Amino acid sequence: MINKEHISKRFDADLEEVRTRVLQMGGFVEEQIERAIEALVDGNESIIDQVVANDHRVNAMEVSIDEICNQIIARRQPTASDLRMIMTVIKTITDLERIGDEAAKIARMARLIYSTDKLHTPRFSEIKHVAKIALDMLHQALDAFARLDLNAAAHIVRQDELVDEEFRAILRQLITFMMEDPRKISTSLEILFIAKAIERIGDHAKNMSEYVVYMVKGKDVRHVTADEIEREIKS
Amino acid sequence: MINKEHISKRFDADLEEVRTRVLQMGGFVEEQIERAIEALVDGNESIIDQVVANDHRVNAMEVSIDEICNQIIARRQPTASDLRMIMTVIKTITDLERIGDEAAKIARMARLIYSTDKLHTPRFSEIKHVAKIALDMLHQALDAFARLDLNAAAHIVRQDELVDEEFRAILRQLITFMMEDPRKISTSLEILFIAKAIERIGDHAKNMSEYVVYMVKGKDVRHVTADEIEREIKS
Repeated sequence: MINKEHISKRFDADLEEVRTRVLQMGGFVEEQIERAIEALVDGNESIIDQVVANDHRVNAMEVSIDEICNQIIARRQPTASDLRMIMTVIKTITDLERIGDEAAKIARMARLIYSTDKLHTPRFSEIKHVAKIALDMLHQALDAFARLDLNAAAHIVRQDELVDEEFRAILRQLITFMMEDPRKISTSLEILFIAKAIERIGDHAKNMSEYVVYMVKGKDVRHVTADEIEREIKS
Repeated sequence: MINKEHISKRFDADLEEVRTRVLQMGGFVEEQIERAIEALVDGNESIIDQVVANDHRVNAMEVSIDEICNQIIARRQPTASDLRMIMTVIKTITDLERIGDEAAKIARMARLIYSTDKLHTPRFSEIKHVAKIALDMLHQALDAFARLDLNAAAHIVRQDELVDEEFRAILRQLITFMMEDPRKISTSLEILFIAKAIERIGDHAKNMSEYVVYMVKGKDVRHVTADEIEREIKS
């Protein structure tokens, strides 16, 4: 009996360790996006370089959490909700790693923008706005994971629709810029790729919030609408 | 003893079933890309509609394979190479599902291109060329998964560099088109999104081939160079 209790406590400690590491990885990825956007707006080249250089740390976090999850499955043979928690972690870190890639991509685009035209860079107010929503989605998805909060998911899925709309608005605006002045085409495309990267961050945050519903309810809500998710949460 | 043998045979049958389903899903996703590109070149609207409509089948395949993998882990408690195989499947189907999304995206862009300008659509020779490489990468990644073939991975990682180069060439060409004739900006951006979707298909195929190395060698080769992968395979 004591032995069983001991194993169960070790198991809980293992799960807690994994959860903490996912939140650390999430916090670091949030920082990477914030700094990439800050560097884009300010044109601060040393921050741009740091964001690009730091991406390998995000990758290393993914590989190491993945390894811990495999060890837990092999040693502790989790079932039911414990197994769902591990599966959620494995999927979540894949999305976090790809959000990290998008942050590095934003930084590389910022570098390109400032290397060609230091004087006529735009104010990026729309980019800052949509990045704020995507960052908020990511923060909420991490919170939902930490607190097993189901209500966040439906909200995040709706915010994702907003991000997609904002992306289309930015695209229309950039097309107008390009038509008015073909010399702005290259920089406009770089801004377009940044907007696309932010839109993808929203997609990944949405994925993460859907895994939380799966973890808590045992129901797979990927590929369903926000309305269906709300129904599922209430059921 | 007989009982143990029986369980082990059931387990092998489970793994075989999962492997078959992944290959079926992969085959269907390959078809989706082929048809999307074909519809783009021919402007065949009924095929465009079919590709978009079929995407939900790819999603359903992902959800169902995921479910089978969870059941296998909970019931059979696999360890070592069996567990790695299941983990490889779980990651592979995420990439396959996203490749499916890219196929649907290509079809939707094709619809936009033909809805605005039926007469002046480009020949798409560069798009066809880069799509052929990405499809070849996907086919090889699925083959490598089926045969546990390590050598494919290093080759696919190199092909991915080629796809990235082709993407940059298409981007430069599109910028030239847009500068010469600003009326071509909208269609050029749609073609750019198609090229981007193909480039992402290459990325996903690369991920899949890296999981095969992990499955066979137990070594995580994500985020390392083609040279390092080759060294790892030979070791």
